[in-house]
Amino acid sequence: MKAVILLSGGLDSSTAAAIAKDRGYELYAITFDYGQRHRKEIEAALAVGKALGVKDHVVISFDLRKWGGSALTDDIEVPTDHDVCDLGEEIPVTYVPARNTIFLSFALGYTETIGADTIFIGANQIDYSGYPDCREEYLRAFETMANLATKAGVEGTMRFKIEAPLIKMTKAEIIKTGVVLGLDYSLTWSCYKGEDKPCGQCDSCKLRLAAFEAAGLTDPVEYA
Amino acid sequence: MKAVILLSGGLDSSTAAAIAKDRGYELYAITFDYGQRHRKEIEAALAVGKALGVKDHVVISFDLRKWGGSALTDDIEVPTDHDVCDLGEEIPVTYVPARNTIFLSFALGYTETIGADTIFIGANQIDYSGYPDCREEYLRAFETMANLATKAGVEGTMRFKIEAPLIKMTKAEIIKTGVVLGLDYSLTWSCYKGEDKPCGQCDSCKLRLAAFEAAGLTDPVEYA
Repeated sequence: MKAVILLSGGLDSSTAAAIAKDRGYELYAITFDYGQRHRKEIEAALAVGKALGVKDHVVISFDLRKWGGSALTDDIEVPTDHDVCDLGEEIPVTYVPARNTIFLSFALGYTETIGADTIFIGANQIDYSGYPDCREEYLRAFETMANLATKAGVEGTMRFKIEAPLIKMTKAEIIKTGVVLGLDYSLTWSCYKGEDKPCGQCDSCKLRLAAFEAAGLTDPVEYA
Repeated sequence: MKAVILLSGGLDSSTAAAIAKDRGYELYAITFDYGQRHRKEIEAALAVGKALGVKDHVVISFDLRKWGGSALTDDIEVPTDHDVCDLGEEIPVTYVPARNTIFLSFALGYTETIGADTIFIGANQIDYSGYPDCREEYLRAFETMANLATKAGVEGTMRFKIEAPLIKMTKAEIIKTGVVLGLDYSLTWSCYKGEDKPCGQCDSCKLRLAAFEAAGLTDPVEYA
């Protein structure tokens, strides 16, 4: 039983991968190098994949900086002064147009090629409800489209499914789940900046630290 | 009035671009370099874009050979022995899993970034009905997904539309339309092989030659 997992190297996708493995799937990981600032994520994704014993791991490279539009890929300063609780109220400045759609499209091609029907994604609409492409409604629309887009879907040999096991979990629940499954969070990377050690100051680091605190656990990652 | 046009450099996408221009759109072209054999297509796309006076032209590079699965990107021999009329009966060997979905996803990101709402694609379900991702039903499902995926779609500032003006045209009608609009078909490239001149023997060249014949016109391209 094969599944493709979108693995960014962050908390969420790494936990989703651990859940997929726990459900008995043979994992095929896909990671994207899209000109983001935090290339550390890619190293983290490969390390997490290795630790989870993925059957294969493809890294797809492309350059989203070609048209800019987000703090993650162009020269806009990554914001650090928001209170964590503000996240989810509006669409964050770190929104990248069509990012998950591009990622899922590649994952769909990979899934059909290896003869699988399931894609795992670490999308979560509790702490990140501001991202339109992290919502259940979006994922179901993608699924419908995917079954019309593909040879296997149209011929009826496959019914493609998007599994988003974290969709309604809080960050604390996500971390507790990963810890129970034996996931080593020291391998993961959340910081929006690409320094040697995570900054502990950006929105993503703050959210991560708050999540470990809410889970009553200590983040095993060493901060700058 | 801006529109993004998926421009491969072939007959269909070039004609769709000419139609978009004729409808008064300012064109933003997007072309993909995805490890296909016929890189000549990319040069053709740039030439067609220039001739049509595109406002901008982005070339997105990525490598679909990472997981193979199609004659267009791996070492499977490109078939040349099918009768042209067989096309459309079944899904061709040149099918690439999720190709149009990947292309449209990038186009969606580009469209949202430039503040446009319209994507033109040269999809055609008459001569190529074998490709699942060239059908009207698929394109509408993509559109639905796109409006749930994006900030502009969710906030209601945009309603993304996929325009496929060729969807129900025959190849002959497509060529006649392009000629009326002044499109120079000598700039386009259809051959599946990447030689200096088109081979005239592969399925794509045969289909092109048959289309010009059906239109009562001579293909301005010089064959090997």
